[in-house]
Amino acid sequence: MSKGLPKRSEDYSLWYNELVKRADLAENSAVRGCMVIKPYGFSIWEKMQAELDRMFKKTGHSNAYFPLFIPKSYLSREASHVEGFAKECAVVTHYRLKADPSGKGVIVDPEAALEEELIVRPTSETVIWSTYKNWIQSYRDLPLLINQWANVVRWEMRTRLFLRTSEFLWQEGHTAHETKKEAEEETIRMMNVYATFAENFMALPVIKGKKSESEKFAGAESTYCIEAMMQDGKALQAGTSHFLGQNFAKAFDVKFATREGGLEYVWGTSWGVSTRLMGALIMAHSDDQGLVLPPKLAPIQVVIIPIFKREDELEAIRAKANEIMESLEDLGISVKFDDRDTHKPGWKFAEYELKGVPLRLGIGPRDLANNTVEMARRDTLSKSVVDLDEHLAATIKETLADIQESIYRKASAFTQEKTTTVDTWEDFVEVLEQKGGFIAAHWDGTAETEERIKEQTKATIRCIPLDQQAEEGSCILTGKPSVGRVLFARAY
Amino acid sequence: MSKGLPKRSEDYSLWYNELVKRADLAENSAVRGCMVIKPYGFSIWEKMQAELDRMFKKTGHSNAYFPLFIPKSYLSREASHVEGFAKECAVVTHYRLKADPSGKGVIVDPEAALEEELIVRPTSETVIWSTYKNWIQSYRDLPLLINQWANVVRWEMRTRLFLRTSEFLWQEGHTAHETKKEAEEETIRMMNVYATFAENFMALPVIKGKKSESEKFAGAESTYCIEAMMQDGKALQAGTSHFLGQNFAKAFDVKFATREGGLEYVWGTSWGVSTRLMGALIMAHSDDQGLVLPPKLAPIQVVIIPIFKREDELEAIRAKANEIMESLEDLGISVKFDDRDTHKPGWKFAEYELKGVPLRLGIGPRDLANNTVEMARRDTLSKSVVDLDEHLAATIKETLADIQESIYRKASAFTQEKTTTVDTWEDFVEVLEQKGGFIAAHWDGTAETEERIKEQTKATIRCIPLDQQAEEGSCILTGKPSVGRVLFARAY
Repeated sequence: MSKGLPKRSEDYSLWYNELVKRADLAENSAVRGCMVIKPYGFSIWEKMQAELDRMFKKTGHSNAYFPLFIPKSYLSREASHVEGFAKECAVVTHYRLKADPSGKGVIVDPEAALEEELIVRPTSETVIWSTYKNWIQSYRDLPLLINQWANVVRWEMRTRLFLRTSEFLWQEGHTAHETKKEAEEETIRMMNVYATFAENFMALPVIKGKKSESEKFAGAESTYCIEAMMQDGKALQAGTSHFLGQNFAKAFDVKFATREGGLEYVWGTSWGVSTRLMGALIMAHSDDQGLVLPPKLAPIQVVIIPIFKREDELEAIRAKANEIMESLEDLGISVKFDDRDTHKPGWKFAEYELKGVPLRLGIGPRDLANNTVEMARRDTLSKSVVDLDEHLAATIKETLADIQESIYRKASAFTQEKTTTVDTWEDFVEVLEQKGGFIAAHWDGTAETEERIKEQTKATIRCIPLDQQAEEGSCILTGKPSVGRVLFARAY
Repeated sequence: MSKGLPKRSEDYSLWYNELVKRADLAENSAVRGCMVIKPYGFSIWEKMQAELDRMFKKTGHSNAYFPLFIPKSYLSREASHVEGFAKECAVVTHYRLKADPSGKGVIVDPEAALEEELIVRPTSETVIWSTYKNWIQSYRDLPLLINQWANVVRWEMRTRLFLRTSEFLWQEGHTAHETKKEAEEETIRMMNVYATFAENFMALPVIKGKKSESEKFAGAESTYCIEAMMQDGKALQAGTSHFLGQNFAKAFDVKFATREGGLEYVWGTSWGVSTRLMGALIMAHSDDQGLVLPPKLAPIQVVIIPIFKREDELEAIRAKANEIMESLEDLGISVKFDDRDTHKPGWKFAEYELKGVPLRLGIGPRDLANNTVEMARRDTLSKSVVDLDEHLAATIKETLADIQESIYRKASAFTQEKTTTVDTWEDFVEVLEQKGGFIAAHWDGTAETEERIKEQTKATIRCIPLDQQAEEGSCILTGKPSVGRVLFARAY
């Protein structure tokens, strides 16, 4: 590392961009808006994927794979769906290149135009429901609970690594049910799975809620979401779960023979989280020294760094380090021993702080003599001396659990601190400008007011919280009656 | 199931297509040439992925992710590469749709043409080596050992589920090395990883070898491969590993500071296997009753089917089945108890035969009385009566291991039986027509002869086997001198 990161307090946005690059998480590619996810960043994503996949399977879902391309006409089948996605579609129009007659490079072969253009999937409802039509005949084929891990493309003009990229990786669940009630329950179930994952694994407190009509998914009856608060006071939508009603069933004519002998349209849901979660993970916990990773998602949970001048010192340390590593691996803890002689310990300390390794053990000759080891926590940057005895592995395991919990508690306290209840327009604007965060305020329930607030302040309704209290009040902008507070924030 | 599968002996091709569909592995989608991988098929692919991923990581590779799109100009940087792929490229030319002025549906927005067209990756060497240029400065950055799991698109006119589809799933390894020797060793190492995976997990015997110049990868110095024999006597290329020399390093100007203080181009490799392996797995082992899956890749290894007439009989069977399931799960064996009352046992037997579940246990009231269970092997379709005692789980575990091994032995014997050594053109043509399989024959080493043989017989050189014996002979077509036999076959 040449020099320190920019400070969060000075330029949060620059801090984020630099951190993503320097911690080897991702970088921009030569292709506009598309990122390269580097091995270290990808190893974090792999851990997130593995856990989510386990949770999806535990709730009865199976993985499958559907085509990357969607015929243009399919998109148009559901009116609001195409309206929502038409402006950001990458379109395949040809299937062949040929040598440039000028003799240099290749050109698109004009004779190889597709009869119907293909859209690179921005989401897969249309291609999946066109398939479900053949899979679903009777109530016996339901519920159909399917997930796919895939790349999707939504053309973006202004992109940011992980947060907004033209291509991103995600999972999309697509389920089909007999009844409205079952589909609604599934929608809520998956929102809860996302919330549990965010809180238990990402150490990220989230607000569960419902989107306003203007913010719901294009083609859904209603959209549920989890919203998280970042350190700069901006909110981030971390996952969405949509109740599709019978919209896509009607668009693709998916009917089933009911238990009663009738024929009805199927009820649907879809739900997804993406590599955007990486952005949330980074922005929620990290500091001016670099990443702070919750142990449950850290590719390396413990790093051991030898502090030595002579080769024989290293050998003694190595023997001890091997013992420690073995005892940690027995407990399922991932550990790395960095014995490179090309870098000094101080450099390594800074490097693993940047990379967010939760625990660092430093061992030098004096430690060996005292039978101790220096343990440094990444989250608090605090150090302690620990006995190098048979309890070490258990101590480390407990400490990792404590780190996981404290990161969550810290983020949770921060989210609470950044949540303000206001009753007037003046307070709303002032809190937004001075403090940011979530603002709980009354709203008259109309899309017009929502839009005017957005235009004037850049704040949007993040959600109508599931735990919204019935409370009579007056809309902060129009003064019209409201039945409960919704959460506003500026957002990523 | 309405009726039986077509017979292999009558129409192998139809048998394959029907089997893929009826066993719920995959189906054609509404998008030309693109398949839907159904949940059961995908669960087999997931098991293959998991094992391969483990093997790649064990040999030091990390996963990463690179963009789906490749700028058109990148493809042209390596001359033979672009020549190899230009004719099958899906090209993105626009990034937006708009409402059709006629009022119906959407059209491509002519104002949203890309400045430079983007190719949907047919393989990722170009976009990856353009990235490696920034990642590699010195020998300290080498070797760089990276893999990605991704979808790729190669536009195909004639497609077949799993074997040849316009979009397919695969992994592509891309490594960079200091020396030619190291890169060559990596190329061979990964070919060996593929061979080990095919033999130990897919129970698929393979021939390791080198491709002829005409058959090597577009952009490689040399291509190594594993070739397998299918039941209809046609060969299938199951995986390839390419030594790229310095071709892509030169095309993308990737140089490194050497240990000696010089500046040199990096040496590269790439290697991949795809969902084509699913085709190989199906075609190598299955029979007229359906799939035969090697236990190591079977999503369900054991199915228990209750044989009952009355509800109280089912209850007694269920209690016993639960005991068995628990003891099997303790040994890491995946097991399913199919107690649906909507289907008769005979229907279920046929269904799980079709799906290739390696072992079936049938339990009825008489079995309970005798404290036995009927065990049926999918591979041999043989049945035996086994004691329902504390040894049952161990017996099943041994039987699964035996099935894994017998499937391999059977395929291996078949491959040997289908390998013929010939010395004359007449014999070559006759064996090809009458028997098919691999033909070990002398070849004069020229691309012209190779091409003429292909034109006349549709047979190609599958590989120059790694264990080729030095042997003087005469080319079967031209009579010109040859130094050793190569393997010919008609191939998928």
